[in-house]
Amino acid sequence: MVKANIGRPRSEKSREAILNAAHDLLHEQGGTGLTIEAIARRAEVGKPTIYRWWPTLADIVLEALLRQANSEITVSASEPLQETLGQFLRQSMKVIEDGAGLHLRFLMAQAQQDEGFRERFRTHFTAKRRAVLRAIFLRAVEQGDISARQDLDMLVDIVFGTMWYRLLTGHAPMDESFADELTEMTIRLSRTTPAQQDAVP
Amino acid sequence: MVKANIGRPRSEKSREAILNAAHDLLHEQGGTGLTIEAIARRAEVGKPTIYRWWPTLADIVLEALLRQANSEITVSASEPLQETLGQFLRQSMKVIEDGAGLHLRFLMAQAQQDEGFRERFRTHFTAKRRAVLRAIFLRAVEQGDISARQDLDMLVDIVFGTMWYRLLTGHAPMDESFADELTEMTIRLSRTTPAQQDAVP
Repeated sequence: MVKANIGRPRSEKSREAILNAAHDLLHEQGGTGLTIEAIARRAEVGKPTIYRWWPTLADIVLEALLRQANSEITVSASEPLQETLGQFLRQSMKVIEDGAGLHLRFLMAQAQQDEGFRERFRTHFTAKRRAVLRAIFLRAVEQGDISARQDLDMLVDIVFGTMWYRLLTGHAPMDESFADELTEMTIRLSRTTPAQQDAVP
Repeated sequence: MVKANIGRPRSEKSREAILNAAHDLLHEQGGTGLTIEAIARRAEVGKPTIYRWWPTLADIVLEALLRQANSEITVSASEPLQETLGQFLRQSMKVIEDGAGLHLRFLMAQAQQDEGFRERFRTHFTAKRRAVLRAIFLRAVEQGDISARQDLDMLVDIVFGTMWYRLLTGHAPMDESFADELTEMTIRLSRTTPAQQDAVP
């Protein structure tokens, strides 16, 4: 029924179909309805095909998210911190509102249930997002916008932490005014001067 | 085999056994090994007994956590913000390190998979924790330690967000030095002056 050795184009098509199926099913049915079986059925591939490429369901959803997130968030690094961070947070909020919030919630939940996936989620997602935001802060240090003594990793923790917490608990909206307020508070914090800790000359 | 109408003491004993079983199993086997069946077996009760008191597995874990957390975090409200917040965060970190971190990670994951539980988790856990921290900030406003124009809810989001993010992603330790750095940064932020937004007299 299936011809052998059709090669790369066919496997590319299957990969695409699997990632689209995962994305669509997550949005149609939420995380609880999402299974490898349902994805295989929707993408018209066998389960072994899926397991050849991804170790778990969560890894498929992560790749589907990365395709979307990479293409949607871009900031201009030449503007002052206020504008760059504002753009970054507004775009993040828009991507979350447009559907990525569902992926993120699913992935963070899976990460609590599978230590191996938690590690991959850190490596392939959170570490990369942290690096982008850290680069924005580092540029602000170079431009003299914030103090060189500022702990940039803690600033990154604070910004992403505040977003993730709202997304996961759902106690308040993820919208533009939240993006703007978080930008404003982060800028205010970044301009304060940390206590001197390594003052020995 | 079982005498009827033994009444409250016996049911209290069963409740206690169920909560202890949930706690112990979570620590012995992690979240993936935790099931209603396993809890029933360990607590020597029937599943219907469990479902009479708790709608889902997550609700049992939540109650087990609340018993622990309520008894362990106390702060003196009469000290300056620096001390009160420092105590609150150090104690929170200690409770997390001593095992509550496992409960919290399990509960936040379950909340992403069950909208009804997410609501109960907000009502019975995160909203209460938020209220305690908000009261600490409000007292600091009254004492003139921080500006009355400060958005206290955003400060609460920032503090809990930063903690939850580290706990869930696991990219850095939840320890005393993290508690102290988060305290220091929150104090610094709380002392900045927000832009005047409602300047009409």
